[in-house]
Amino acid sequence: MQQINTKPLSGFLQLSPSDQLEFDRIRQVILEEHLKAGFSPVDVPLIYRNEVLLAKAGGETEKQIYELKRGDHNLALRFDLTVPLAAYIAENQSELSFPFKVSQINKVYRGERSQFARLREFYQCDADVVGRETLSVSYDAEVINLVNSIYKRLGFGEFTIRISNRKLLTGFLNSVGLGEKLSDVMAAVDRAEKISSDEFKGLLSAIGLDQSQLQRISDFISIEGSNDEIIGTLEGLGVEDSSYKEGLVELKEVLSILRQMGSESNIKIDLMIVRGLDYYTGTVFETILVDHKEVGSIASGGRYDNLVSKYSNEKFPGVGASIGLSRLFVVLKEKGIVSSKRKSPTDILIIPFSADQLEYCYGLAQKIRQSGKNVDILSEDMSFKRKMKYADKSGIENLIVVGENEIQTGELKQKNMFTGEESIFSL
Amino acid sequence: MQQINTKPLSGFLQLSPSDQLEFDRIRQVILEEHLKAGFSPVDVPLIYRNEVLLAKAGGETEKQIYELKRGDHNLALRFDLTVPLAAYIAENQSELSFPFKVSQINKVYRGERSQFARLREFYQCDADVVGRETLSVSYDAEVINLVNSIYKRLGFGEFTIRISNRKLLTGFLNSVGLGEKLSDVMAAVDRAEKISSDEFKGLLSAIGLDQSQLQRISDFISIEGSNDEIIGTLEGLGVEDSSYKEGLVELKEVLSILRQMGSESNIKIDLMIVRGLDYYTGTVFETILVDHKEVGSIASGGRYDNLVSKYSNEKFPGVGASIGLSRLFVVLKEKGIVSSKRKSPTDILIIPFSADQLEYCYGLAQKIRQSGKNVDILSEDMSFKRKMKYADKSGIENLIVVGENEIQTGELKQKNMFTGEESIFSL
Repeated sequence: MQQINTKPLSGFLQLSPSDQLEFDRIRQVILEEHLKAGFSPVDVPLIYRNEVLLAKAGGETEKQIYELKRGDHNLALRFDLTVPLAAYIAENQSELSFPFKVSQINKVYRGERSQFARLREFYQCDADVVGRETLSVSYDAEVINLVNSIYKRLGFGEFTIRISNRKLLTGFLNSVGLGEKLSDVMAAVDRAEKISSDEFKGLLSAIGLDQSQLQRISDFISIEGSNDEIIGTLEGLGVEDSSYKEGLVELKEVLSILRQMGSESNIKIDLMIVRGLDYYTGTVFETILVDHKEVGSIASGGRYDNLVSKYSNEKFPGVGASIGLSRLFVVLKEKGIVSSKRKSPTDILIIPFSADQLEYCYGLAQKIRQSGKNVDILSEDMSFKRKMKYADKSGIENLIVVGENEIQTGELKQKNMFTGEESIFSL
Repeated sequence: MQQINTKPLSGFLQLSPSDQLEFDRIRQVILEEHLKAGFSPVDVPLIYRNEVLLAKAGGETEKQIYELKRGDHNLALRFDLTVPLAAYIAENQSELSFPFKVSQINKVYRGERSQFARLREFYQCDADVVGRETLSVSYDAEVINLVNSIYKRLGFGEFTIRISNRKLLTGFLNSVGLGEKLSDVMAAVDRAEKISSDEFKGLLSAIGLDQSQLQRISDFISIEGSNDEIIGTLEGLGVEDSSYKEGLVELKEVLSILRQMGSESNIKIDLMIVRGLDYYTGTVFETILVDHKEVGSIASGGRYDNLVSKYSNEKFPGVGASIGLSRLFVVLKEKGIVSSKRKSPTDILIIPFSADQLEYCYGLAQKIRQSGKNVDILSEDMSFKRKMKYADKSGIENLIVVGENEIQTGELKQKNMFTGEESIFSL
């Protein structure tokens, strides 16, 4: 027989039942924290007209998009959850209350060259607040606070949320007469951490900056100290540009709210953070694990002011936080930070010694299930030895073997397969 | 500005936040019942090589499949969860313990002509048990019992799970010398309920059956009575065909186990049930709402003996139950059987009277969240009148307005927006 290759395509995760359990647990924690903070779940379609998906996309995205063959329609798969959200808001603006807080935990598709932990199908966990015409900067603090709550609860180790505001660098560049080089400088700053200081300066001179200009930018993005010290330094620079001043006010307010929320300890101002994407306009942030910086950002996002602009004449400013869960899971598992402790969601496995005890076992299972436990019965007709082998391999924590004796005495023995502990109970 | 059409494609549901909450609640109930019965969640990829998806598919499926344009690979989207499961089993057989019980709650894609409640993107909720070489018929009873638990808990009204066994009709046809017309007769029986008795007989004569043959088949599938009476009638027919006898033994055993599980009251033997799909080989069932038969089957499935055969030389018999959740939701909502009671997952909305109370509100929200409640703060700077309008439109059940007075006295007033009830509390 010709064998068909059933291996998942490269870049497509297929988790084992054990990993799936741990993955689902993490996903559930994220969802619960979204809900606790007042975000409403939205489940968007997978397939859109190309023109909807590509309205905002750059050349790189266009190359990565999965297009469908389907008559003469130009259809494709979503590559993020932000574009579908924008279409959703444009379509439903009259029914929604703004500010509208949205939770989206869903898969997205990017046909890029796949490499370790670079996936083509992956979960994004997005929380966005979208306003109509205006959106208070307090919501910037809210999404950052949400990231803080999520990682405090997940317990993957010490983490830092590094925040900045794009208006600061924009204004600073304006003030030194480099306003027209903004997007090139932003791109260089975005790479600054991944390259050496000399390489960084090389990038800036390639853009056309002279020695003194590139030194000033280097100095600016390297401002250090406590959050209050950095704010003090920024205030003392005497930059009069209006964008700069606005950015500083916003950054101070975000920080002050995070202090009021009791989550400032994990927050650190860092002027190197600009985020690659063009659509961010104010607050930007990234999150790193202090002991595993090499993992890269485990949650990032920021403020965007013109998201729905391609679909609507009204203005819908927004701010969001996104976690790339699938990549995070793979990387943290590889490092042993995430481990799949349970092999099965089943709490108790009931094994009838022989087929004669099956009927009793069905009733027993139904009763234990009613108490909220997950219960399985091994009703397949196999030797007792094979049944015990199954119990072992299944990884189910508790085992109840039911034989004639148990039914007669009504005394059942539950054995914890992890600890070896046994306990007797009766119904 | 040229407006882009952001309407979802036809056949793609985009639920409102309120409907989404109810949808998610139902989905969660189904998942919990799967887990309670010992099924493990598996989350399969969306995209496969065409040859994997089409290994088992007939002509109709091939026309409905969404294919991708992607270099010279032939890729497509899953159109059900059974084929991906078969690939998964073939791929991971050495790591899994059999019988393997799988829960899959995921979207599938079929590019068929869309009409009301006929969707191109929809959730399937599948529970399957897969054995290696053998699989006891007791698992047929288990998946039927699972459907019973799910619908008892969901409370959509009185329902009946109609069960049969394909071997009975197969054997009966053999015994009257019509074995080679099996698949045509099955197809006719599958339609019998939707057409008149004359049309049904017309179908059978078109296949080439004479008057006496078609009468015998009509009589056979119309056998009525209690479950025990039908079994008695089937035993009394004196059919000696081995397939028939096997089917009868299996049906009796399934029924006996369902009785032991205490779920027989919703089960009804019905020989008209054959299920359209060719791969069912034994037990088959459908579920109907007694007061809304026109909805059609709300959960169906059966036994298949050769699912993984295209990918593996080993035999992996299985039995499954599937709920087409998206269509079910749309239809039951239209009938008022499902209603979206809550507009928001948020339990409490905190509104600061003015910006002066914001800081206090952040602390308050954090404290209430710690007690497990979902809490939102309206921190947007707007008039108090607009804030109250937001509170109204948001549909959040409880409201706490915080003014100067509340902060000074420490006495907070929580108002239930649905009942008008007010209660005073302090932190």
